[in-house]
Amino acid sequence: MVEWTKHDLLDLSDLSKEEIGIILETAKSFKEVSQRDVKKVPALRGKTVVMLFFEPSTRTRISFELAAKRLSADTINISLSGSSVLKGESVLDTAKNIEAMNVDVIVVRHSSSGVPKVLADGLQASVINAGDGCHAHPTQALLDMFTIKEKLGGIEGLKVGIIGDILHSRVARSNIWGLTKLGAEVTVCGPSTLMPIDIEKTGVKITFDLMKIIKTSDVLILLRLQQERQQDKFLPSIREYAKMFGVNKEKLQYAKKNVLIMHPGPTNRGVELSADVADGEYSVILEQVTNGVAIRMAILYLLLGTKGMEEDR
Amino acid sequence: MVEWTKHDLLDLSDLSKEEIGIILETAKSFKEVSQRDVKKVPALRGKTVVMLFFEPSTRTRISFELAAKRLSADTINISLSGSSVLKGESVLDTAKNIEAMNVDVIVVRHSSSGVPKVLADGLQASVINAGDGCHAHPTQALLDMFTIKEKLGGIEGLKVGIIGDILHSRVARSNIWGLTKLGAEVTVCGPSTLMPIDIEKTGVKITFDLMKIIKTSDVLILLRLQQERQQDKFLPSIREYAKMFGVNKEKLQYAKKNVLIMHPGPTNRGVELSADVADGEYSVILEQVTNGVAIRMAILYLLLGTKGMEEDR
Amino acid sequence: MVEWTKHDLLDLSDLSKEEIGIILETAKSFKEVSQRDVKKVPALRGKTVVMLFFEPSTRTRISFELAAKRLSADTINISLSGSSVLKGESVLDTAKNIEAMNVDVIVVRHSSSGVPKVLADGLQASVINAGDGCHAHPTQALLDMFTIKEKLGGIEGLKVGIIGDILHSRVARSNIWGLTKLGAEVTVCGPSTLMPIDIEKTGVKITFDLMKIIKTSDVLILLRLQQERQQDKFLPSIREYAKMFGVNKEKLQYAKKNVLIMHPGPTNRGVELSADVADGEYSVILEQVTNGVAIRMAILYLLLGTKGMEEDR
Repeated sequence: MVEWTKHDLLDLSDLSKEEIGIILETAKSFKEVSQRDVKKVPALRGKTVVMLFFEPSTRTRISFELAAKRLSADTINISLSGSSVLKGESVLDTAKNIEAMNVDVIVVRHSSSGVPKVLADGLQASVINAGDGCHAHPTQALLDMFTIKEKLGGIEGLKVGIIGDILHSRVARSNIWGLTKLGAEVTVCGPSTLMPIDIEKTGVKITFDLMKIIKTSDVLILLRLQQERQQDKFLPSIREYAKMFGVNKEKLQYAKKNVLIMHPGPTNRGVELSADVADGEYSVILEQVTNGVAIRMAILYLLLGTKGMEEDR
Repeated sequence: MVEWTKHDLLDLSDLSKEEIGIILETAKSFKEVSQRDVKKVPALRGKTVVMLFFEPSTRTRISFELAAKRLSADTINISLSGSSVLKGESVLDTAKNIEAMNVDVIVVRHSSSGVPKVLADGLQASVINAGDGCHAHPTQALLDMFTIKEKLGGIEGLKVGIIGDILHSRVARSNIWGLTKLGAEVTVCGPSTLMPIDIEKTGVKITFDLMKIIKTSDVLILLRLQQERQQDKFLPSIREYAKMFGVNKEKLQYAKKNVLIMHPGPTNRGVELSADVADGEYSVILEQVTNGVAIRMAILYLLLGTKGMEEDR
Repeated sequence: MVEWTKHDLLDLSDLSKEEIGIILETAKSFKEVSQRDVKKVPALRGKTVVMLFFEPSTRTRISFELAAKRLSADTINISLSGSSVLKGESVLDTAKNIEAMNVDVIVVRHSSSGVPKVLADGLQASVINAGDGCHAHPTQALLDMFTIKEKLGGIEGLKVGIIGDILHSRVARSNIWGLTKLGAEVTVCGPSTLMPIDIEKTGVKITFDLMKIIKTSDVLILLRLQQERQQDKFLPSIREYAKMFGVNKEKLQYAKKNVLIMHPGPTNRGVELSADVADGEYSVILEQVTNGVAIRMAILYLLLGTKGMEEDR
């Protein structure tokens, strides 16, 4: 079996099919830990994991924080909004100062693409990309793949539709990388103004017809419409978007039986999907959240190369 | 002896006299834990307690956080002010996402009455109400009752005066429920504009005469005047309030010997009470704070139904 | 050997030469802990350490937080900016309420000089000054001394130059106290408008000539120019300051071989020092950060007088 050798997790494009497989397999056993009465293993005892968030994100932050705590690591939260980043000091300087406190992992989220790579190149600590600009969000894609595999038994040969603002979506980008590498056939769908030029080069198909993608997909990944980004006039209106690309129960009648409805959260109910679809029988949105902790435990565990998953006495 | 069976703590009105007794008794042994050299027991090891605060409150948050940590639980703080609650997602949606990370307890504070109940109805995790709107603040009332019982040996038959803004006070409401259930005679006192209509139906007496309540009470609970709420012109001025309903040393000469002066904090010195009363011989305000941690440990412990209070090696 | 008896750490002026020696010696063994695979000792298990920050400071806060966590203490972060301090309640009232939760140590930072002393006088919990106004920052000075001693073998007889805004610098003030007590010869250098009157009375020399201090010093401590304070027109311009008092590679050619370049951080690259000096061979800036955790572990350990540094099984 392939051994894990990576020191950072920046993007799925850095990982082989086998390495993705190792993460998904490791996450399986960690999912079981979070279902125990005592949700804690000593694997990372005495390690320090820092959440360095330049962009606010309650959910991703607490998912990583819980993952680290359930592995018995010490955790530190640092939330630096744009204004509080210190003048005269670069992001790398800030990170080097944090690292100098003998920190093992820095989980970084930043609104600029490429920041995690800059940190990984300049630091000895392991760096995990928790979302950078419109570039990548590898742990989200991994938890999506984990969820699909768990629900449908595998990924190879599946038809996956990704619907929404493809242009600005790091979730879409990372999922495209991962899912195509594992053999899924990915189709993207969204308003033409929110579709990146040359997206076909990543190996996906494009459609602008929502009903077509609904009818043919085994999995539908609905992207969050980040309304704060729509000031740029990519869309006539949110209502128009909801009408054309929102998924509701009526449209879903035409879907394959057992289609999976996924969403990285937080959902805009009434926009990307109706409330009854979000809470409906095909939705695995909350299971994605559950699996997110397991994926992040797996990654922390693999990056720190620690032995000793046996239960703490 | 009655066994604890409740899954949530929303309001004292849900609890029987016996259940309140169990909480107070359990808190007694947890108070001792916080006085040890090693203030920690393994009772909730591997459990996850989330403080989900939609309204800022440093004190209540750290009281719960310390309670959980001294029981060895993992803790997560989430502070969401009005503006950062995500559009398109309800409070219950947010909580369900948090719960999906295999969380055991959600401690919630919200400016709207009823939010804890909505969460409790929709979640499997235990919900603790840490204050909702003008509705209830059960852990505050429990720590008040604990303090009274500890200081005066019991609650039955005591005369308790609650002074201040009864209308907006969740502390008053919860204390009225609990204290009358345990057999105290409760009288409320405050400006008529801040007195709820039909308050007598809760089983209390009303007076608008501060000196009368001072002379006859065994316990005086002074409520915080939330000055931010006084924009609604309930009061001519803060100064007027302080003169008519503020308790100072001079007025306290007429009180019963050994009267207890209580306040949920933070105090407005010079408004509800003078500094010399706050720091004086009758004040048990800081002991209330100490007892708050014990009460919260007891509740977390009871809700999670965990055995094993024995000291960690 | 002298025994440690102090209950608080407010300023280096309270400490004897021997007591400083104990701290530096204790920090040495704790530095080793942070280099282990398992960075954790059980020394302060079941103790509660509160970071009470009235002034934001990510770095100092996480340094203390990590120090406490690596000693197995429970930690609580409280960040109160000016506006959120509760009206009607003094800083001491706030601290007494926190202490009432059976807290062992309060680490306090405040923009007003003297706040830590007020707390220490009024509380039973140990108080550590993490920076108060322009007054003192003892842990910073201790980590500076630790770094100098580690790099140069001792402090006695060394020539130390402190360059920058001496007037507003608590770092300068604490370093002057500590370094002169340990027998160093300290010279301060900066714009005359930023030089305190009568600074010579603290036992230091003054120069306004940067090249002179560069040529003669074994250690150069560059202070952060707090640009937010320069609205008071102490300086013609930042650019002028950088030209006259900024240290760059060219000026450093005239320094002693093996000079140490120190800075309390965060650095203003291009102002107090050029980027190539900050990252250059003489810079020990990141080692200062590393040593900061060790110093803070030592102080927490000494103040709480706990035995048991042996490794947790």
